[in-house]
Amino acid sequence: MIHYCCYCHHNNTSMASPPSRSPRLLSLARRAFSSSSSSTQPNAVSLVQGASRGIGLEFVKQLLENNDKGHVIATCRNPNTSTGLLHLKDRFDDCLQILPLDLTIESSIEESALSIKETYGHLNLLINVSGIFSIPGVLQPETTLNKLEKSSLMLAYEVNAVGPILVIKHMWPLLKVGGGIGTERSSAVVASLSSRVASIGNNRLGDWHSYRSSKTALNQLSKTISLEFARKKDPIISILLHPGTVDTDLTKPFQKNIPKEKLLTKEYSVQKLLHIINNVKSQDNGKFFAWDGQEIPW
Amino acid sequence: MIHYCCYCHHNNTSMASPPSRSPRLLSLARRAFSSSSSSTQPNAVSLVQGASRGIGLEFVKQLLENNDKGHVIATCRNPNTSTGLLHLKDRFDDCLQILPLDLTIESSIEESALSIKETYGHLNLLINVSGIFSIPGVLQPETTLNKLEKSSLMLAYEVNAVGPILVIKHMWPLLKVGGGIGTERSSAVVASLSSRVASIGNNRLGDWHSYRSSKTALNQLSKTISLEFARKKDPIISILLHPGTVDTDLTKPFQKNIPKEKLLTKEYSVQKLLHIINNVKSQDNGKFFAWDGQEIPW
Ligand SMILES: NC(=O)c1ccc[n+]([C@@H]2O[C@H](COP(=O)([O-])OP(=O)(O)OC[C@H]3O[C@@H](n4cnc5c(N)ncnc54)[C@H](OP(=O)(O)O)[C@@H]3O)[C@@H](O)[C@H]2O)c1
Ligand SMILES: NC(=O)c1ccc[n+]([C@@H]2O[C@H](COP(=O)([O-])OP(=O)(O)OC[C@H]3O[C@@H](n4cnc5c(N)ncnc54)[C@H](OP(=O)(O)O)[C@@H]3O)[C@@H](O)[C@H]2O)c1
Repeated sequence: MIHYCCYCHHNNTSMASPPSRSPRLLSLARRAFSSSSSSTQPNAVSLVQGASRGIGLEFVKQLLENNDKGHVIATCRNPNTSTGLLHLKDRFDDCLQILPLDLTIESSIEESALSIKETYGHLNLLINVSGIFSIPGVLQPETTLNKLEKSSLMLAYEVNAVGPILVIKHMWPLLKVGGGIGTERSSAVVASLSSRVASIGNNRLGDWHSYRSSKTALNQLSKTISLEFARKKDPIISILLHPGTVDTDLTKPFQKNIPKEKLLTKEYSVQKLLHIINNVKSQDNGKFFAWDGQEIPW
Repeated sequence: MIHYCCYCHHNNTSMASPPSRSPRLLSLARRAFSSSSSSTQPNAVSLVQGASRGIGLEFVKQLLENNDKGHVIATCRNPNTSTGLLHLKDRFDDCLQILPLDLTIESSIEESALSIKETYGHLNLLINVSGIFSIPGVLQPETTLNKLEKSSLMLAYEVNAVGPILVIKHMWPLLKVGGGIGTERSSAVVASLSSRVASIGNNRLGDWHSYRSSKTALNQLSKTISLEFARKKDPIISILLHPGTVDTDLTKPFQKNIPKEKLLTKEYSVQKLLHIINNVKSQDNGKFFAWDGQEIPW
């Protein structure tokens, strides 16, 4: 539940005291809001990285519609061509900011971080959604070792593991400032979209080498940074999420093999994932959850 | 124990019947030997990838000295400058072949496979040893998320995960032909050097993002191919090995932080690892073992 209203919504009902944080940092976080917010308290600020379509777009939609996360920043490679985001911008003009970000171009990540710092001064939630599974002519989910291509492995790693961790690196200072302020949580949350097939222990079928191993690398990176957040007592919890098998462009070419009852709508999946994010506890830091709340083994 | 003698040793005492294999494949495997071997049965052929120094060089030495693996192919980036390998070549001229192979240059992997196919026709053991942990000015074991560099992550992945799996891809046909012939095993073995720090479940300290996550990706790739070997009933067992903390160039810059009793000699580590390789069972396919035989969680 939101406590500090967004420009376009005014139903802030309760005031949770934010966790102790240095006055300098807090004033930094408040600064950007004093001119536009109806409260002197900062709004919650959420970033959805990879929001052009699919699960990412749905996260943005639900965050805005539920009005429980204040401001939402949606990043994508081509802001002008994401009709879904542009439509949301029409509906939620004041609460939604769209920024260009390509995971393979680190400068675009740095520029997003700078822009967020200047506009909001902090972040309370970062959802790393982008991921690639199959790109015709470029990346095919491998069905045998014979089909392994170096270029596919390297691209999958760049987009699915390296990109998201660079986003976390550059947003880290903003998340430290933000912590849980503007939310009911005592910490900021970093949620990175992994996949059940990233689990080595659960791997029974093999194949999909590039996708699997890149998401497994993401899992290790996410676990690794969660330990640093804990060691430094940063007010940040980092988790990994498996959204289920969801009806999006990613699964479209493969849906004939998926039993209908196993295919989740993106609305349902994101609702469950937001429930996990909103209820995360400090002891969840570093963990890997499926959409239904079950922990997934490494 | 060797059953089919190497050119330079003649103490073959017993003859184990090789597992059933198609006559065409077996004759392919025998062909290369009929002119030079004292037996019409093919010798065991072992490939150590990453043999210029450290643990890889020690594998080559012990395989040759124990005379229980027949022919040994040692690959490295610069065959002319590995004094250790050149010294072994002096001692074991007929049993040792040195080939150039750089994990970042796929054509060098393909050329090695072609050369091995033409000379020996098969492989019974592939040990993927090469790995990078720290390269001054290029790759530093990161001590904080702030120090993460995209170039380091990508290089670690290229050398520690993608390279070894491409070696397995290109050697796969030779391993299928070879299986356990010339050895006491019923299968060929692929052993890839990982590290305990690749374990996500065991990760308590964090940091070393590039090295850790690249070895974790290698673990997933190794597990993935083990499932295909099993599915296709290939006579190949794929395992991952942690050599312990071993006194080599890799650990040299960091040894002041390692208690002396925790630092293994490469002689001892390789002896233990060869024991695991020589005694591997089909149910070990896909597993991750430390030098002392303990399984390491994912
Ligand atoms: N759908 C499932 O069943 C499923 C299952 C398990 C895990 N997941 C994971 O959940 C996440 C979302 O999946 P989805 O189903 O929503 O996929 P999707 O519909 O295919 O969307 C993929 C998203 O990633 C973005 N993206 C691709 N390359 C990018 C880059 N270089 N930089 C920035 N963004 C990039 C795409 O942007 P463009 O529009 O610019 O291409 C798009 O927004 C992924 O990480 C996926 O691996 C999905
Ligand atoms: N030592 C330990 O305590 C320890 C612990 C856990 C795991 N490991 C793993 O065990 C393996 C061997 O380690 P080590 O201690 O023997 O390391 P090392 O002494 O540093 O030797 C590394 C080897 O990797 C080779 N290499 C590097 N880049 C390569 C490339 N692009 N293509 C082909 N070969 C390349 C090196 O060849 P050049 O001579 O050409 O550079 C060298 O032979 C590694 O995979 C390492 O990660 C070691």
